[in-house]
Amino acid sequence: MALTAAEYRETLRRYKPRVFVDGQAIESVADAPSLTPGIAAIGLAYDFARAAEHQVLMLARQGTSGKTVNRMLHIDETSTDLLYKLEAIRLLCKHSGCAQRYLTHDAFNAIFQSTRRSDAAHGTEYHQRFLAYMHRIQDEDLTCGVAMTDAKGDRSKRPHEQAVPDVYVRIVERRADGIVISGTKAIVTGAPYVHEFLVMPGRNMVREDADFAVCCAVPIDAHGITIVARPAGRPGESAAKFSGRYGQSTGVVLFDKVFVPWERVFLAGEWNEAEFLTRTYATHHRHSCIGARAGFGDLLIGAGVLMSEANGLDPNDHAHIRDAMVELIKIVEGFFACGVAASVYGKLDPAGNIEPDAVFANIGKLLLATQIYDMQRLAHYVSGGLVVALPGPDEDHNPATAASLAAVLAGRADIGAAQRLEVARLTEDLTASYSAGWYSLISLHGGGSPEAMKREIYRRYPLEDKAALVTQLLDRGVAGTTKRDQPGRCCVTGCQVPEAPTTQSDKEAAE
Amino acid sequence: MALTAAEYRETLRRYKPRVFVDGQAIESVADAPSLTPGIAAIGLAYDFARAAEHQVLMLARQGTSGKTVNRMLHIDETSTDLLYKLEAIRLLCKHSGCAQRYLTHDAFNAIFQSTRRSDAAHGTEYHQRFLAYMHRIQDEDLTCGVAMTDAKGDRSKRPHEQAVPDVYVRIVERRADGIVISGTKAIVTGAPYVHEFLVMPGRNMVREDADFAVCCAVPIDAHGITIVARPAGRPGESAAKFSGRYGQSTGVVLFDKVFVPWERVFLAGEWNEAEFLTRTYATHHRHSCIGARAGFGDLLIGAGVLMSEANGLDPNDHAHIRDAMVELIKIVEGFFACGVAASVYGKLDPAGNIEPDAVFANIGKLLLATQIYDMQRLAHYVSGGLVVALPGPDEDHNPATAASLAAVLAGRADIGAAQRLEVARLTEDLTASYSAGWYSLISLHGGGSPEAMKREIYRRYPLEDKAALVTQLLDRGVAGTTKRDQPGRCCVTGCQVPEAPTTQSDKEAAE
Amino acid sequence: MALTAAEYRETLRRYKPRVFVDGQAIESVADAPSLTPGIAAIGLAYDFARAAEHQVLMLARQGTSGKTVNRMLHIDETSTDLLYKLEAIRLLCKHSGCAQRYLTHDAFNAIFQSTRRSDAAHGTEYHQRFLAYMHRIQDEDLTCGVAMTDAKGDRSKRPHEQAVPDVYVRIVERRADGIVISGTKAIVTGAPYVHEFLVMPGRNMVREDADFAVCCAVPIDAHGITIVARPAGRPGESAAKFSGRYGQSTGVVLFDKVFVPWERVFLAGEWNEAEFLTRTYATHHRHSCIGARAGFGDLLIGAGVLMSEANGLDPNDHAHIRDAMVELIKIVEGFFACGVAASVYGKLDPAGNIEPDAVFANIGKLLLATQIYDMQRLAHYVSGGLVVALPGPDEDHNPATAASLAAVLAGRADIGAAQRLEVARLTEDLTASYSAGWYSLISLHGGGSPEAMKREIYRRYPLEDKAALVTQLLDRGVAGTTKRDQPGRCCVTGCQVPEAPTTQSDKEAAE
Amino acid sequence: MALTAAEYRETLRRYKPRVFVDGQAIESVADAPSLTPGIAAIGLAYDFARAAEHQVLMLARQGTSGKTVNRMLHIDETSTDLLYKLEAIRLLCKHSGCAQRYLTHDAFNAIFQSTRRSDAAHGTEYHQRFLAYMHRIQDEDLTCGVAMTDAKGDRSKRPHEQAVPDVYVRIVERRADGIVISGTKAIVTGAPYVHEFLVMPGRNMVREDADFAVCCAVPIDAHGITIVARPAGRPGESAAKFSGRYGQSTGVVLFDKVFVPWERVFLAGEWNEAEFLTRTYATHHRHSCIGARAGFGDLLIGAGVLMSEANGLDPNDHAHIRDAMVELIKIVEGFFACGVAASVYGKLDPAGNIEPDAVFANIGKLLLATQIYDMQRLAHYVSGGLVVALPGPDEDHNPATAASLAAVLAGRADIGAAQRLEVARLTEDLTASYSAGWYSLISLHGGGSPEAMKREIYRRYPLEDKAALVTQLLDRGVAGTTKRDQPGRCCVTGCQVPEAPTTQSDKEAAE
Repeated sequence: MALTAAEYRETLRRYKPRVFVDGQAIESVADAPSLTPGIAAIGLAYDFARAAEHQVLMLARQGTSGKTVNRMLHIDETSTDLLYKLEAIRLLCKHSGCAQRYLTHDAFNAIFQSTRRSDAAHGTEYHQRFLAYMHRIQDEDLTCGVAMTDAKGDRSKRPHEQAVPDVYVRIVERRADGIVISGTKAIVTGAPYVHEFLVMPGRNMVREDADFAVCCAVPIDAHGITIVARPAGRPGESAAKFSGRYGQSTGVVLFDKVFVPWERVFLAGEWNEAEFLTRTYATHHRHSCIGARAGFGDLLIGAGVLMSEANGLDPNDHAHIRDAMVELIKIVEGFFACGVAASVYGKLDPAGNIEPDAVFANIGKLLLATQIYDMQRLAHYVSGGLVVALPGPDEDHNPATAASLAAVLAGRADIGAAQRLEVARLTEDLTASYSAGWYSLISLHGGGSPEAMKREIYRRYPLEDKAALVTQLLDRGVAGTTKRDQPGRCCVTGCQVPEAPTTQSDKEAAE
Repeated sequence: MALTAAEYRETLRRYKPRVFVDGQAIESVADAPSLTPGIAAIGLAYDFARAAEHQVLMLARQGTSGKTVNRMLHIDETSTDLLYKLEAIRLLCKHSGCAQRYLTHDAFNAIFQSTRRSDAAHGTEYHQRFLAYMHRIQDEDLTCGVAMTDAKGDRSKRPHEQAVPDVYVRIVERRADGIVISGTKAIVTGAPYVHEFLVMPGRNMVREDADFAVCCAVPIDAHGITIVARPAGRPGESAAKFSGRYGQSTGVVLFDKVFVPWERVFLAGEWNEAEFLTRTYATHHRHSCIGARAGFGDLLIGAGVLMSEANGLDPNDHAHIRDAMVELIKIVEGFFACGVAASVYGKLDPAGNIEPDAVFANIGKLLLATQIYDMQRLAHYVSGGLVVALPGPDEDHNPATAASLAAVLAGRADIGAAQRLEVARLTEDLTASYSAGWYSLISLHGGGSPEAMKREIYRRYPLEDKAALVTQLLDRGVAGTTKRDQPGRCCVTGCQVPEAPTTQSDKEAAE
Repeated sequence: MALTAAEYRETLRRYKPRVFVDGQAIESVADAPSLTPGIAAIGLAYDFARAAEHQVLMLARQGTSGKTVNRMLHIDETSTDLLYKLEAIRLLCKHSGCAQRYLTHDAFNAIFQSTRRSDAAHGTEYHQRFLAYMHRIQDEDLTCGVAMTDAKGDRSKRPHEQAVPDVYVRIVERRADGIVISGTKAIVTGAPYVHEFLVMPGRNMVREDADFAVCCAVPIDAHGITIVARPAGRPGESAAKFSGRYGQSTGVVLFDKVFVPWERVFLAGEWNEAEFLTRTYATHHRHSCIGARAGFGDLLIGAGVLMSEANGLDPNDHAHIRDAMVELIKIVEGFFACGVAASVYGKLDPAGNIEPDAVFANIGKLLLATQIYDMQRLAHYVSGGLVVALPGPDEDHNPATAASLAAVLAGRADIGAAQRLEVARLTEDLTASYSAGWYSLISLHGGGSPEAMKREIYRRYPLEDKAALVTQLLDRGVAGTTKRDQPGRCCVTGCQVPEAPTTQSDKEAAE
Repeated sequence: MALTAAEYRETLRRYKPRVFVDGQAIESVADAPSLTPGIAAIGLAYDFARAAEHQVLMLARQGTSGKTVNRMLHIDETSTDLLYKLEAIRLLCKHSGCAQRYLTHDAFNAIFQSTRRSDAAHGTEYHQRFLAYMHRIQDEDLTCGVAMTDAKGDRSKRPHEQAVPDVYVRIVERRADGIVISGTKAIVTGAPYVHEFLVMPGRNMVREDADFAVCCAVPIDAHGITIVARPAGRPGESAAKFSGRYGQSTGVVLFDKVFVPWERVFLAGEWNEAEFLTRTYATHHRHSCIGARAGFGDLLIGAGVLMSEANGLDPNDHAHIRDAMVELIKIVEGFFACGVAASVYGKLDPAGNIEPDAVFANIGKLLLATQIYDMQRLAHYVSGGLVVALPGPDEDHNPATAASLAAVLAGRADIGAAQRLEVARLTEDLTASYSAGWYSLISLHGGGSPEAMKREIYRRYPLEDKAALVTQLLDRGVAGTTKRDQPGRCCVTGCQVPEAPTTQSDKEAAE
């Protein structure tokens, strides 16, 4: 049951969440202008899955059910799956800026692994519960938001040490039919216009934090939930060439004694599982972020080509413009390559799915986190200073000035001022507006700060192997032929080829 | 006659310029909310010159008249002057973001040199004319905008080759009493709220471009001038903690047969002087930009300190936060040091003033142009991702959510949520809003693109001396003791000490 | 017939090349101490192919013959082949610094493609000739050097315009039985101790350059060849912990009327094929360089671990050391990932083999070219300044000082001074000696300068697709679903899985 | 009594130090070929002070004695002094690579301040003692080495906690006539060919470390001292175009019960003064390092100009070469500017001398420490790969190859192969040899590691002022006019102008 974007929007009417945006109560999420760009962005992940030309990337066979599902809801089984997911996200994000729906995928895969592990260690029955839940979401083609980042309060203290306990979400009551949770998740992407929240722990825990080790699913309009959100993108702003159409809302989600029945609970007190779940989610999510930001990079590269054209600066003749374009490409494809390598070197989990290689996934995310600023710099470099100085779109229809401006603001004779202004305003929207700031900060801190990635890289890298290599060299004075220099396996025998999808070699025709 | 900021604002009423902002005609510049932040920023350069504690930096003795004038209108005579100007601009900009008025200074010094040179080469009388004009501006304490950057049209063509001649400003008629000019200046900072425009050529010229080699002064409301401007900063936006108060408007200025009497004309057809004037202005201006952006850096550093405090992350305990702060300081003081060196190694001009060393001034500007993006990255790194995810200020008074949010959005117990949100919003305003984009792009391209600076560095650096050093070494095999390894002189004998002003060693008390 | 390293060395005795090293004639290459490290490095590529644990990486089935051959001589047919070649080179180079033999592979694949293309365009019979030649080399398990980089002379002139024609290799006579070539190849890696040279054109040509469009194979001791080489590594230097054992000689190869029979000629005058051959070789070779320098990176990482241990600085407690290690890992795995992506997105050639994706291969090479200097910086950062200040190995046996030094030069109590000095000297050898300089420069300029890679990236990147994406977005205001957003194929249907080999996930035990 | 270089060399014969180089005992330092380049480099600081054209920089009036002394032995009193010292060091180092003698200056200034401070706090009489000592050294024009960096042993332990006490130098006996010291200083620059050692503490201390808080002067041949040194540069290597002539030896200095009479003791147990002395020395020294490495930069820039000329690549036509040269200049002058700013903002010490501004000095040193690697990269980029592949100088006289190579290895017709090879070999020596490694590592770690500089920058930067600025802004909503925004003073009233010396504006003619 693959929904269209329009059908997805209709399904939102079934829910009555308590949502505030900029201090105003939202009566109907599906109709709120301030949220329209966010709904449109997620909508792409629906429509593209119905378009024949995208289905190789956008659909996948769910191994546990045998059904075909949207790849944004799919459990990866092979390196090919990881690679196709990466490409699917890049595809969606180059059209939408950030498609958001991959968060569901990232959480599904992590909970899939984590519940299996909890069951093995604690004799719980989370895995089957989760499968049942996930299959239903896949069948109904719904979208889940990820409620992971707690408000945190005093960062030098653990959850159970906080003066204000509500800065973390926790179990406040255990009942026969379920649990009751309270607390605050501070940065929930897409919060107002998803169907359900996957509540997940956001850090490692100690025994005293057991009540905070909670993972469960709740509908967005469960009793006790309040969502305080920002508008998605820049709705209604005439200069917002892109983010007036596609955007992302981030929200604070307050949980006030929200009841969750047991069939929706996937972790409840097994504190020593929190770290695994958090980390595993982080690995899947950082891998996804690579695809997302590569798609954003595609937009900047395309805008750069059009902008230098409109300025009359052929990069073949202007080495500094060509250099800037190459630098931009190098950054985007450089971190994307880490996503590819993380796919190829993916690691099979005992649960039966595959996890991207953590070192490559973290390096790719780390590279994009800091280089998003360089990407903006290069986009500015190529486009020129006019981007933030051009008269705004409200000037275009001023009879006192429109003709004069049109006459003098063109670059090349064959590219009119209007076309040049369009690209310049798109560039401004993507790189010099609130949306630009949002993309930067979310790239830097989304999925964990750079410091978190560095620590993970250090923790996961086979440093001892490298040390052994050098020790052996110094000790024996001869090159070793060690047992382990043989190839490992990225995926189950007989798995499909990680066929490289589109972007690099094929053309994307604008028919 | 040093005006106050309030008096400056009143003087604007004397002018009736034709101004449009976002498609709307502005009746009274002094009263237009959309321009208020720009007027406030320039106002600081007035008020600070009246405050006893700032007068060492803000006032200077004009050598040609013996009068005390605002340093933003002053002709530099010594290295100390250059250093004090640099510090004065930093002072103004750390309070206002960008004080804009230093543009008058930069143009005055360049025209001062250029007119003297034109007179010597062509027997013209521009220099005395300019002195008379400048002394009047100094006496009346006015502010001039710099109309230099032409619309340019097809960038692969020279001014006289353009299909649409109005893409450059040029002389369209020479009359007994003056000249008539037409054309377009595309990026004029502060355009709507200055008193006069200094029209200047923006590139080198050839003989056929002679009509485009024009420098003159016109009142903002001269007949035939239309100003199409953006709002200054983000007036009226509740989230604009800083740029709601201080900002900069940039405007396109259309000249349609504007008459300029000869006493206001400082270059009119001597095409081979255009390059000198453009370059000299660039050197003064790039030096000024260094001070301006260092002031912006002071704001980011201060916000970083407060933000990490509010987050409860003591940099002494969190090496990655401390590292980011040090990196930010390194960038800001690193390019500022180039401004200091350009002052110390300033070069006396035959006209009697001093020009900052071109190599150091260009390196400093080049460093800030590209590193402004790193500055934003570091500010984001220190502040955390909440900056773009926090509920906006309109939420603060929502009775349905205010209390809950205040309870959970604080970091440390001793720093309330309100205070944390204030700093976060200031950081967002400075680094993740339209204003942030404006600061970035204007840093990158203002005063010329990075490529222009690189070429100037290459052109001005004494490469032949370094080659001679190595040649000598290879030829003679001994270290040379050459005649020229002796110290030069930065300024006239007996000049004042380049005394180091405030920032580094003194405290700025918030009394 | 897979030779051992010892057998390879013996085969060198069959040749009597004219070789000079540092002004001295070399009587027997196999016995020359100055060349021993180079022979040892190539030897690894032989011995490893005989070691069962390495054969998955080191051997491959040659499709055109069905025989199993050394992967350094193999024609790639699938993405898996490319990935395994990449890993095989990393394996060899982490044990040898630079194994050199992959040059044969790179040339073989390029000539394989180029001859097929020449035949199609010009009706020549180069391809079959080359196959016969290649099969013989594979059967006899020989090693070919690549003689590509001409001396070039005045770089502003084309080959046929040079005043001294010998600065490029060219055909000076065409005979019934073959051609005669003269000229100079200036940088030939491993020149003295390979079996044959593959002479290849090093740039694009025009019609007048036809005589310079020559590709052929000659034995190293063909009449008329003189090799002027540097020692391989730092043979005989006591401080050369690594490069005393493994190294690379680079040589100038002078061709003076060298006769080449037709069966060894693979291009002779078809000037418009020179560019394709040069570029194709460059792509294969840059891909190989990625593996090679990742292996060098493994050595630096391992040395860094041991050095910080010996200094008593646990990276877990010293954030700046951990940061430096992570930065080093990020660089090495970051460019290696580009090699992986180039494998996955490889492109099938009409000749039947597969070529790495040019964009990813060039980005990876470009990243390593400039970041090799950062790698050295980080290795130095981790190791500390003592590396270049410690007494040399000749001091170790000085009875007057040995005991005292041993007592005070240890770091931790449990790691003796001797062990610390060993690692420090290894680090010095790899990062602060002539060998270090060689690795840096060869990384920067080997396989073409960074500028060459930038131009290739610009030329090969699908810029028009990105422009179309943005145009479509601006035109239609809706996200497109274009025909080409579908996955392409990296390799023939049914090809093997690009299984990820060892490095990341498995341990390399030092048994 | 200003000595010549030759006289300085003669004075070394008066001393009979116990020196080993590479395991060999050195009978006469003045005659040891392995040390000749080091003696030559220091010699320049003597000869240049006798050359009339250098005396403005190289001589200075010592305020405490009224005598004219070598600037490398001088106590700075004004900003001008700091600036002239900086330029003097740059002058010496661009001719010698690293002149070493400025270490005496750095230690003298630090001990000058420290002794004055100790006396005030502890009632000691160190200052007068030191003045007497210093005046003698100035009168006799001697050179002191700085013995500061201890062997350190286990870096996680303080001096008094070490298992092997000799890893730090300390007082082992206090006698009526003096003290006796033992222990190891591990990296002493120029150790074998200075006249005296200034023994100084290298870290902060606690009460239990009191015996380690020792500062004193000892002649190089005092009983109990053993020096284990490396050769200076690359003496005797034919390819060492530069470092065969000028170099630096670093040595381990072992103190075994060395007696020091009281008149040479400047700190003996006042443990809480150790940190001040160490830090103050670091500030002076880091400032000096900036001048030194800028001189090294001059060599690289000059070599780059000649190399691109010889290659026939005019940077005006080849943007990538020009870009690399500009990048090199930007780095060198960028960190040099920090040295200039540190001079201008110098701080007067109660002892009567002036200390460079710590923030700017540390930033400058930090920039050069990491960017030395970029400098080498850029030098390689400009010079091309041939640098490490060209036949060595021993080939030049091989009759079998010399003529052929000379014919084909030239670039432009008007620049012979010999000249091209000379520059290439100089570049190799400076950037791809052991000497290159030495310059890199000593730049990175000399004067403290980058981490030490970062901590010092953080500690010394007026962060609270910046925080106050932002607090004030948020609190009052208006720009402040604070008392402290006024200029401070860099030096005593009436001090001389920091006149800018040579490099930037004047030409250095190779007469």
